[in-house]
Amino acid sequence: MTQALVGLRDIEAAAERIAGVVRRTPLLCTRLGRTDAPLFVKAECLQVGGSFKLRGATNAVALLSGEQRARGVITHSSGNHAQALARAARAAGIDATIVMPRQTPEVKRVATAEQGAEVVLVDISQRAAELERIQAQTGAVFVSPFDDAAVVAGQGTIGLEVLDDLPEVATVLVPVSGGGLISGIAAAIKATAPQVRIIGVEPELAGDLAEGFARGTRVTWDSADTGRTIADGLRVPTVGELTWRHITALVDDVVTVSEDAIRSAMRAVVLDAKVVAEPSGAVAVAGYLAHSDVVGPGPAVAIISGGNVEPALLRDVLAG
Amino acid sequence: MTQALVGLRDIEAAAERIAGVVRRTPLLCTRLGRTDAPLFVKAECLQVGGSFKLRGATNAVALLSGEQRARGVITHSSGNHAQALARAARAAGIDATIVMPRQTPEVKRVATAEQGAEVVLVDISQRAAELERIQAQTGAVFVSPFDDAAVVAGQGTIGLEVLDDLPEVATVLVPVSGGGLISGIAAAIKATAPQVRIIGVEPELAGDLAEGFARGTRVTWDSADTGRTIADGLRVPTVGELTWRHITALVDDVVTVSEDAIRSAMRAVVLDAKVVAEPSGAVAVAGYLAHSDVVGPGPAVAIISGGNVEPALLRDVLAG
Repeated sequence: MTQALVGLRDIEAAAERIAGVVRRTPLLCTRLGRTDAPLFVKAECLQVGGSFKLRGATNAVALLSGEQRARGVITHSSGNHAQALARAARAAGIDATIVMPRQTPEVKRVATAEQGAEVVLVDISQRAAELERIQAQTGAVFVSPFDDAAVVAGQGTIGLEVLDDLPEVATVLVPVSGGGLISGIAAAIKATAPQVRIIGVEPELAGDLAEGFARGTRVTWDSADTGRTIADGLRVPTVGELTWRHITALVDDVVTVSEDAIRSAMRAVVLDAKVVAEPSGAVAVAGYLAHSDVVGPGPAVAIISGGNVEPALLRDVLAG
Repeated sequence: MTQALVGLRDIEAAAERIAGVVRRTPLLCTRLGRTDAPLFVKAECLQVGGSFKLRGATNAVALLSGEQRARGVITHSSGNHAQALARAARAAGIDATIVMPRQTPEVKRVATAEQGAEVVLVDISQRAAELERIQAQTGAVFVSPFDDAAVVAGQGTIGLEVLDDLPEVATVLVPVSGGGLISGIAAAIKATAPQVRIIGVEPELAGDLAEGFARGTRVTWDSADTGRTIADGLRVPTVGELTWRHITALVDDVVTVSEDAIRSAMRAVVLDAKVVAEPSGAVAVAGYLAHSDVVGPGPAVAIISGGNVEPALLRDVLAG
C-alpha cells in the first residue's frame, strides 16, 4: 500500500502537538543576498538541541500508542536525529536506544548520551543489522530519521512558521539528506502558496538526489562516497521512499554545492547573521550564493538546519 | 535641573515607537547554568545591525522635532552606537555624522559608513573637541550613546521583552560601559518586578562603575587604562550623570570579570547557544559564570549586547 503524502492538516496538528517542547525559531534577515532577492535564514540552529530534528521526533513520539510507548523507541542516526529522539523520548518518559556510527562527531555523541538514551556505537555498515538485532530483543519502535509521515509532518512545521513570518517569500532553499525536512516544508508551503519555489540543496559529494531528480528515478550512492563531505548530517546515500514521492510531487529543483562553498557559507553566516551553522546547516545558504540562476526575484529563505559543530572545524572555517 | 529617572511609560512608549524598525530578539535557554539558576541569554547580537544600540538610537531620532531633524544628528562612538544612529537616521531620512576613534575595529567602521553616515576618524583624545567643532558648524543634534533619556528608554525595551518572555526571571546580568543599557533595563523591570535582581558586569580592566558603586560615588578611570580590555564596546571611562542616578537607584550589584573569563564566555556562547557574541556581548555571561555568589536561585538572564566581532579574534577565542 502506498501511503498518502503528508497534508497541511497533518502539519498543523503536529504544530499544536509539539508547541510546548519545540522552540519557534527566528527568521533573520541577512545582508548576503541580491538586492532583488534578499536572503533570510531560518535559524533552526537555535532550536532546542541545536537542530530541526526535535520537531519530527517529538511529533513521532507523541503519536505512539500506549503499548508502543512501553516498548520504547530506537533509531540509527549520524547525530542530530539521535539527540532529538533521545530528548523527545525523555520528555515523554519512555526508553530510547540509538545506534550510531563510530565516526559521529563527539559533540553529537555526548549530547545524545546526556539525554539519557542508550548509545550503541557500530561500524557504519553494521547499522541496519545491529538495529534489527536490538529491535528483535526489545520490540522497540523504529523511528526513521526521515522516512516516516509523523517525522515529515513535524519538520513541516518550519514551513508554517516561514509563511507566517514572511508571507511574501518567493524561494525556500532546504538542505537534503534523507529528505524529511524538504518533504515537510514543501508539503506545508505548497498547500497554500504553490507559487513559492522549493529548492533542495546537497553537497556535490552526496548528490544522489540531484542526480535522481534530473533522471526522474531515485538513485542510491555508495556511502563510502557520500561519507566524504564535510556536511556530516547529509551523508545518507539516498532519500527515502516516502520522501522521494514528496520531492517528485512538490520540489521545483535540486542543486549541489562544493565543499569550499559550504565552508564559505558557514563563515558568512557567522559573520553576517551572527549564528553558528554546522556544515550541513550552511548548505542551503551555499546553494543560494552559488546558484543565482535558480533563485528568482523576491525574498528567499535558506533553512539553517543545525548548529552542532566541533570548535576546531569552526575555527578552521573562520580562517577563510 | 535634575532630570527625572526614565519611567515605565517612557519605555512602553519607546517600544511602540520602535516596533517597526527594531527586531524582537529571542531569549535562548542554555545548558551553561546551575541547576537551581538556569541561564538564558537575550540575543541582542541578532538585533538589526548586530547590537542593542538600534533601540535607543531609533527612539531618540523618533523624538526629534522637525527643526531638529533638518539639522541632523551627531555622536561619538566606538562603533555599535555609531552604526545604530546611522541606521536610525537613514530610516528617518536625516543626516548623521559620526566621530570615531581611529582604533575602532574595521568591521564597525565599515558598517557605519555603509549606512550612509559621514564618518570622521580622530585620535580618541580629540573626540569631544572635534564633535563640538562640527556641531558648531552644522547645528547637528548630539545623541549621546548612553546619557540621554530617550536612549535609556529605548534600551529599556529589552527589559519589557525579558519580563514578557520569562515572567519568573530572578536575576538579570547586564554589561556596563556608559550605563544606558542597564539603566533602561533596570527601569523597565523594577517598575513591575522589584524583586528581580539587576547585576551590572564590567571587565576588570574597565571597572570604573564597580569601584564607584562600592564607594558610593561616581568615578572616572583613565581611558588609557579602560582601553586595555578586549571588550571594545566597554571602554567608556565612566558612566553618565543620568545613568549613574539610575544605577544607584535601581541596580543591586556590580561585578567585574577577567579578560580570560570574557574569552571563555565567548566560546561557551558560540558552542552552547549557537550565537556569536562580541567580547562586550559576552561579559554578562562571564559575570554569571564567575560570580555564583551574586546569582541567587531562580532563572537568570544574561544580556548578549552585540555580536560584531573580527573573524580573527573569534577564531583565536575558539582555540580555547
